[in-house]
Amino acid sequence: MDRITPRTLSGFMELLPEDQIRFDRMVELIRESFSVYGFTPLDTPVIEAAEVLLAKGGGETEKQIYRLTKGDSDLALRFDLTVPLAKYVSIHYGQLAFPFRRFQIGKVYRGERAQRGRFREFYQADIDVIGDGALAVINEAEMPSVIYHTFQALGLKDFVIRVNNRKVLNGLFAAMNLEDKAGAIMQTVDKLEKIGLTQTTAILVDELGVPKDSADRLLELLTSSQRGQSPVGILASYMGKNDLLDAGIEELLTVARYMEAFGVPDTHFTVDLTIARGLDYYTGTVYETIIPAHPEIGSICSGGRYDNLAEYYTDKKLPGVGISIGLTRLFYVLEEQKYLNPGFLTAPADALILPMTEDWAPAIAFATALRSMGLRTQIYGEEKKFKNKMGYADKLGIPYVVFLGEDEIAANKVTVKDMHTGEQETLPARAAAERIAAGVKPGRTAKPIGV
Amino acid sequence: MDRITPRTLSGFMELLPEDQIRFDRMVELIRESFSVYGFTPLDTPVIEAAEVLLAKGGGETEKQIYRLTKGDSDLALRFDLTVPLAKYVSIHYGQLAFPFRRFQIGKVYRGERAQRGRFREFYQADIDVIGDGALAVINEAEMPSVIYHTFQALGLKDFVIRVNNRKVLNGLFAAMNLEDKAGAIMQTVDKLEKIGLTQTTAILVDELGVPKDSADRLLELLTSSQRGQSPVGILASYMGKNDLLDAGIEELLTVARYMEAFGVPDTHFTVDLTIARGLDYYTGTVYETIIPAHPEIGSICSGGRYDNLAEYYTDKKLPGVGISIGLTRLFYVLEEQKYLNPGFLTAPADALILPMTEDWAPAIAFATALRSMGLRTQIYGEEKKFKNKMGYADKLGIPYVVFLGEDEIAANKVTVKDMHTGEQETLPARAAAERIAAGVKPGRTAKPIGV
Repeated sequence: MDRITPRTLSGFMELLPEDQIRFDRMVELIRESFSVYGFTPLDTPVIEAAEVLLAKGGGETEKQIYRLTKGDSDLALRFDLTVPLAKYVSIHYGQLAFPFRRFQIGKVYRGERAQRGRFREFYQADIDVIGDGALAVINEAEMPSVIYHTFQALGLKDFVIRVNNRKVLNGLFAAMNLEDKAGAIMQTVDKLEKIGLTQTTAILVDELGVPKDSADRLLELLTSSQRGQSPVGILASYMGKNDLLDAGIEELLTVARYMEAFGVPDTHFTVDLTIARGLDYYTGTVYETIIPAHPEIGSICSGGRYDNLAEYYTDKKLPGVGISIGLTRLFYVLEEQKYLNPGFLTAPADALILPMTEDWAPAIAFATALRSMGLRTQIYGEEKKFKNKMGYADKLGIPYVVFLGEDEIAANKVTVKDMHTGEQETLPARAAAERIAAGVKPGRTAKPIGV
Repeated sequence: MDRITPRTLSGFMELLPEDQIRFDRMVELIRESFSVYGFTPLDTPVIEAAEVLLAKGGGETEKQIYRLTKGDSDLALRFDLTVPLAKYVSIHYGQLAFPFRRFQIGKVYRGERAQRGRFREFYQADIDVIGDGALAVINEAEMPSVIYHTFQALGLKDFVIRVNNRKVLNGLFAAMNLEDKAGAIMQTVDKLEKIGLTQTTAILVDELGVPKDSADRLLELLTSSQRGQSPVGILASYMGKNDLLDAGIEELLTVARYMEAFGVPDTHFTVDLTIARGLDYYTGTVYETIIPAHPEIGSICSGGRYDNLAEYYTDKKLPGVGISIGLTRLFYVLEEQKYLNPGFLTAPADALILPMTEDWAPAIAFATALRSMGLRTQIYGEEKKFKNKMGYADKLGIPYVVFLGEDEIAANKVTVKDMHTGEQETLPARAAAERIAAGVKPGRTAKPIGV
């Protein structure tokens, strides 16, 4: 037979079983966390009509798109979960209650140049709250809480949520008569952390023509949090200079004020006026989440407030606020940085049953009993040497092996071997099951991230 | 602005929130059930190299495939989860322990003609056990147990798992000197339920040239279970006629013998010699699962034993046994037949908090407390009339609304309204939280299927 060499496309993550169990547990915990905040799950098609998906157009996105034809249809694979949300809300508007709170965790596709740590197929985990005409600022204040509790649930300890408000930035520029340069200045400020204060000032003054004293005042304010000063206090002194700035300060203060009630500690939250989030899309609060020990990773959860979700599909004004986690890249980075928790049980089973008699019924019945208790159980029925059977359990990291020989069956007992300690004990079936349940609990309930 | 009319492609399921919550709960329960049997989760790319995905070739499949090019790459979307499994096992052979037990729940793509209840993008939920060179029959005996416990967990009551063995069928044909007609006879027998005994006999005799008495004997045996007789007893009398038949009877008896130990009651399991499962692919035990009240639905979970998973990729012999649930179609049918459980809570939240004061901190803090107990909680902060706020809870079916006014906050209490009974009570925060937790438990733990 002619054989084809099997391969997986580059840029497509395909995990070995133990990593897949970690990844799936992360997805499960994220789902739980989003659900607890009252977000409802959505699942939209991976394929959409190209005309619908590309309604907004735009160069970079369109170049990266996976496009195909089937029959007469011009189709494309989704490249994010926001456009499908806009489509969904536009189509099902009449059947939804607003504010509409949804989460979606799914694969998206971008034909980027393949390189280490870049993926062409990757999971995004998004939440958004969509208002019908208006949306209260409390929804913006709630987002850091969702971020905090989600990473907390995953076991990540070392992270900080940075918050800013686009109205504050835009208002500041207006107060300084720099409105026409706002876009360019914000893009420059966005790079501040990478290129440093001196070079940022140079670009502002030399390239953008910002007066030197304006650039200094602006950057002094913007970098206050880096210098350990809360910008919130400083901002109060800017009140009354213009309406947009006032509105932005008001919103930012509201967001900051409710962090304690939302259960987000000071250690994990900061107002940082340098956060601009490249996109012109955002109009209010913006979010970034960084791992201080690894600034090179960049933001692991970002988002913000926007004014109009679905203007390409509907004349309804649909403001919203949302955040997104790039899960595939996050997992890749966590593994690379050794942030995954070695105490998390990645075996596919809690117990492996070895029938040692002609009649397998007692071994099967014990497996059925373990399973009815929620214990993940395999029965090993292959004709192999004993050594190979134990090797199988060992290779998979299955914590308990159970033997059922004639003696055990006659005494209505089973022999349990703890693969970690090597200890072996013959116990009544019920006691053995409880021993296994207690033994696997720490590993099964451990958080997937450990740093 | 030029607007595009948003639409979802036909043949692509897109659910409203309450149905999505039902669907997701089904997926969650299926995952749990597969995990308890010691299957490990896999997730493979939706896109593969066309050359790899279509290695087997074959007319119907290739016509239905979604194919695309990106740069120089000839790509295709997976049309099942078996080919990706074959690829995965071939690539990662050295890193896996055998028997390799995996489950995968994911979307697959087939460009079938669009019609009611047919989907072009649909979920499959598959489990397979892959042996390295050999695979013990206990793995075949275990499959009905996985099927039984999975549908049991979903809440489906009215279903029967039918089991047969291809060696029994092939052996019978050999014993009757009908070997050369085996394929055609089995295809005809597969239609027996649809076309009836008379027409089946006619096709066998007139079209396939089977002697009348052989056709009668064959069909009498095959239809024994329809007439309420166990074919197992009758089969014993066929022992010794040929080796293949003997091996098949042996396997079938083994599978049937262990059903009790595996926890599968007689009411939900039957040996049925008419089950052939169209495909020539299967070589041992085969499975079908039907809903007796709705035979027109066909099988909701099928599969069987095969000899060689990955012959197109590797010279390693990899026998396996697997089953598959077509989840998207199953959900569609269950909904259409009104099998979904109205007692299952489909609201996105257990409680809706209405802050009634200027300072939202107490309301937010109560929401944080509910969330820390795992209660799904929304805060409604929009400026709307009271009637509209209640209407929001009503439309979503949120079971409890919580008010925090000045009086409540002063007394360190909250007012809870049970939206089902209309009763309203002012309670200390902790008591209110416990009231809500107890009230939502039946709806949240209810099974998604109810018949």
